[in-house]
Amino acid sequence: MPRIAYLGPSGTFTEQATRALTADFDAELVPHDDVRQALAAVRSGEVVAAGVPVENSVEGSVPATMDALVSDEPVVAVAETVLPVVFDVLVRPGTRPEEVSTVASHPHAIAQVRGWLEANLPRAEVHFAGSTAAAAAAVRDGEYDAAVAAPIAVERYPSLERLSAGVADVRDAFTRFLLVRRPSPPPEPTGADRTSVAAVISDEVGTLALLLSELTLRDINLSRIESRPTKDRLGEYRFFLDFDGHVADSRVGDALAALRRRCSEVRFLGSYPKADRAPSAIRPSASEQAFRASARWLDDIRAGRIA
Amino acid sequence: MPRIAYLGPSGTFTEQATRALTADFDAELVPHDDVRQALAAVRSGEVVAAGVPVENSVEGSVPATMDALVSDEPVVAVAETVLPVVFDVLVRPGTRPEEVSTVASHPHAIAQVRGWLEANLPRAEVHFAGSTAAAAAAVRDGEYDAAVAAPIAVERYPSLERLSAGVADVRDAFTRFLLVRRPSPPPEPTGADRTSVAAVISDEVGTLALLLSELTLRDINLSRIESRPTKDRLGEYRFFLDFDGHVADSRVGDALAALRRRCSEVRFLGSYPKADRAPSAIRPSASEQAFRASARWLDDIRAGRIA
Repeated sequence: MPRIAYLGPSGTFTEQATRALTADFDAELVPHDDVRQALAAVRSGEVVAAGVPVENSVEGSVPATMDALVSDEPVVAVAETVLPVVFDVLVRPGTRPEEVSTVASHPHAIAQVRGWLEANLPRAEVHFAGSTAAAAAAVRDGEYDAAVAAPIAVERYPSLERLSAGVADVRDAFTRFLLVRRPSPPPEPTGADRTSVAAVISDEVGTLALLLSELTLRDINLSRIESRPTKDRLGEYRFFLDFDGHVADSRVGDALAALRRRCSEVRFLGSYPKADRAPSAIRPSASEQAFRASARWLDDIRAGRIA
Repeated sequence: MPRIAYLGPSGTFTEQATRALTADFDAELVPHDDVRQALAAVRSGEVVAAGVPVENSVEGSVPATMDALVSDEPVVAVAETVLPVVFDVLVRPGTRPEEVSTVASHPHAIAQVRGWLEANLPRAEVHFAGSTAAAAAAVRDGEYDAAVAAPIAVERYPSLERLSAGVADVRDAFTRFLLVRRPSPPPEPTGADRTSVAAVISDEVGTLALLLSELTLRDINLSRIESRPTKDRLGEYRFFLDFDGHVADSRVGDALAALRRRCSEVRFLGSYPKADRAPSAIRPSASEQAFRASARWLDDIRAGRIA
């Protein structure tokens, strides 16, 4: 059975996402302590893939993932999924709300349910744990009365029960996860794909505008951009770009080749179906047909068949 | 004495940064529980300014600050400072390394000293606290043996002593902080300034490339860019941009006016001296002299004085 790594511990949102990303095949899921280790296991061949968080609508991007994607040997994303950030509040069976005097979770989770806690468990003292799952384990062990945890946690800690489900102060908060593996032929284009790259350019006026113009000229819609300082070379910036389209699309391939000419380094981070399956609208001038017709026309010109 | 808010609790890096940002004047520093509250105190006039973290080289940007800057009434940054991320390990006096069986800190701080802990306190059990300062307080109270805390913490908790100073796995990690106040005439240009804006544009192909071209055409160097989904309107993106130059500079003013024409919303987030004081190099075509000369020339043309 293939082994698939994920950012652990077990019983967290990342395990839940990794299960969704690997629902189609039998796999053994293996928790790793941090993203770097999970991707090292992919790179070494110890696992066939890894599930990692990439951005959260409230907390922002996950720099540990971005840095781990561009360090060491290449890896590529082959699938994405998006999970709503809603929590379960778990207690030992029979615990009533008025009996909860301590509640624990990861600080990020606590930050996203503070309003709910004030309204529903106003007298509970807040404690911090290293993960939402560690908080659930501590409740099971009698250390705290309640844990704010991912919906999957109750499966991991079946001796607990839900005091409340669907808890979240911010509605529509989400986290996006990627399934990452060693380079291999990308998944087939679906017409609703996303491509991720990391491009390093020199810190000069206008280089980013030119780089983005290469996408614009080919009718490619950018869905995310973030600059990160490169650690290794002064005076250079690394941009993480997500945009619509698949590397197999002519317009995307053409743009990537242009980026390759302009940048000191371009790392292809994968083409994969978008979680929302929303098809990309493409102008006629950037369609496959238009690219094929223009290539034929150029061939004909060069061969002296037409003028 | 003017009151200045900061992201608390006291004894953390943000207090240390806010002290550095306000070293020139007598002020009472007031900790607030979160960035939103600190900026609400600025907006209401309860405090004259607030010190807030904006980005960390390891952990990435601070979305809570970015979101709070663009919500509600306008506020502007008037100064920035950069602190190296190096920690003190604090213990009760006389504690020897081999006596440390528990160590506590905020999960982000623990993540940045894991290597040091493994090498120097390999048998210490790790516990998590809501802040580096809360960990120091817990050590003072006898709850844990050691805390990983900001260098300022020992001043707040004078009953503790340093087991080790300058602790950090990643060298050169830094956090950038801003001093934010209600809109007022910006600080004088110094020749080494940074300007921050948040621009909302429609989610159409090429709008960002055009927006950045407006900066490029005026020889303005971008130092940071990050997209955040706007919560209020679908199909729109908000870009946080930091670039060289001061709003009083002709090239920057000209570019901002162009952004205002192109974007559905532009929020000016301040012009302030760069922490590194590195002067911006400007091509002759974007100099003040060139802008003044071209404006005079156009006036003369329009008045029929020359042709």
